[in-house]
Amino acid sequence: MALIDTALAPARPAGTEPAWSHAEFEAQLLGKGKGYHIHHPFNVMLNSGRATPEQVRGWVANRFYYQIAIPVKDAAVMSNCPDREVRRGWVQRIVDHDGTDTDPGGIEAWIALGMATGLSREEITDLRHVLPAVRFAVDAYVNFARRAPWQEAVCSSLTELFAPEIHKQRLAGWPEYYPWIDSAGLQYFRNRVSQARRDVEQGLALTLDHFDTRALQERALDILQFKLDILWSMNDAMAARYGVAA
Amino acid sequence: MALIDTALAPARPAGTEPAWSHAEFEAQLLGKGKGYHIHHPFNVMLNSGRATPEQVRGWVANRFYYQIAIPVKDAAVMSNCPDREVRRGWVQRIVDHDGTDTDPGGIEAWIALGMATGLSREEITDLRHVLPAVRFAVDAYVNFARRAPWQEAVCSSLTELFAPEIHKQRLAGWPEYYPWIDSAGLQYFRNRVSQARRDVEQGLALTLDHFDTRALQERALDILQFKLDILWSMNDAMAARYGVAA
Repeated sequence: MALIDTALAPARPAGTEPAWSHAEFEAQLLGKGKGYHIHHPFNVMLNSGRATPEQVRGWVANRFYYQIAIPVKDAAVMSNCPDREVRRGWVQRIVDHDGTDTDPGGIEAWIALGMATGLSREEITDLRHVLPAVRFAVDAYVNFARRAPWQEAVCSSLTELFAPEIHKQRLAGWPEYYPWIDSAGLQYFRNRVSQARRDVEQGLALTLDHFDTRALQERALDILQFKLDILWSMNDAMAARYGVAA
Repeated sequence: MALIDTALAPARPAGTEPAWSHAEFEAQLLGKGKGYHIHHPFNVMLNSGRATPEQVRGWVANRFYYQIAIPVKDAAVMSNCPDREVRRGWVQRIVDHDGTDTDPGGIEAWIALGMATGLSREEITDLRHVLPAVRFAVDAYVNFARRAPWQEAVCSSLTELFAPEIHKQRLAGWPEYYPWIDSAGLQYFRNRVSQARRDVEQGLALTLDHFDTRALQERALDILQFKLDILWSMNDAMAARYGVAA
């Protein structure tokens, strides 16, 4: 019977660990949720009713820059993707955000949210309130999608795993906390609860299939962290500009 | 009264000529049609009924590489385009080619055409017949769309101005010339006659508006020539490989 001294055993070279099962890998991805910006002090303030109208407006106006980047990012994913079946599913994201002749779409719904908080359409769409660090963070996301293999760009979308919860928080709390916001303006969040769930099914399935060695799975976790960092740093920038109630 | 000797007048510096009117500019763009591959000997052979089954199949199999590049190219245009209204129109091209749950789409229609000429689905989709020069030409188009300003990529799509005519030639002649091709296989051409007309309306309007100085208009003509060169050189490569009947 051999004695094995793990302390003396050579470190296992990177990348030789066995791949996680799909269930284990998914659990690792979900575990990243502890770094989702739902926990950022600025967002906690917003979603617990302690934000001033200026802080709410600042958040909506800055987040608009993210909203308008999303269809451009999704087109970048598709422009790198030779798989017709993937594109067939992914294109729905662009249609959802840009709208059609009969559906004004998610970007328009976000403008309606902004106007319900007291911003004018012009001051939302001309981006005058968008902070430089918010712009840099969002641009980093778009540039990643343009340059990375499309499977990595898909993986970076997986913060959608955590999005329905944050939208539900807003829908549950904002009407009570912020009665001065016309609740019709919250339609964006209502739409996204179901859309994000449908979108994440495709993104998660593609990620679980593609990242099929331990080294690739760890790369996927790093990519998801990169995207979490983008959302977190947007909140940092807004906290620095608009303050955070104690 | 001054005498003006045009021979002695200094050459007008590039770019200082007045812009053409929209009508003049459109006529200049249409004038480029004389270089459309409808006039290439290989295409003339195809559309006048002098092609062998091998030449027809070679054309269909090679052109497939162009067909599958189109939605990727169109996604690249959208990934560079911050204009939501433009994207709303442009996305229809991707949907037309990739299809939906209820419409098999243009790429699938092209596969059906190939199978109607006697190719197997596999030998079409695995690209085994695609010639290197065809690949390079198509890739040049996609890379241009990825890197150029989106308005230039839109302009490069304007060979669609000439496409309905070439599709109509095929629909008019092929059933008689090539009775061994199941005419159901020609559905792609039927669809594109109307789709190309609708698509070109958006592309032409955007081009006429954006290229609004003489220098820019001449740049637009150069871009359209670049795209004509792509289609022409694809035919050159096929003529070299499959021959052209005298």
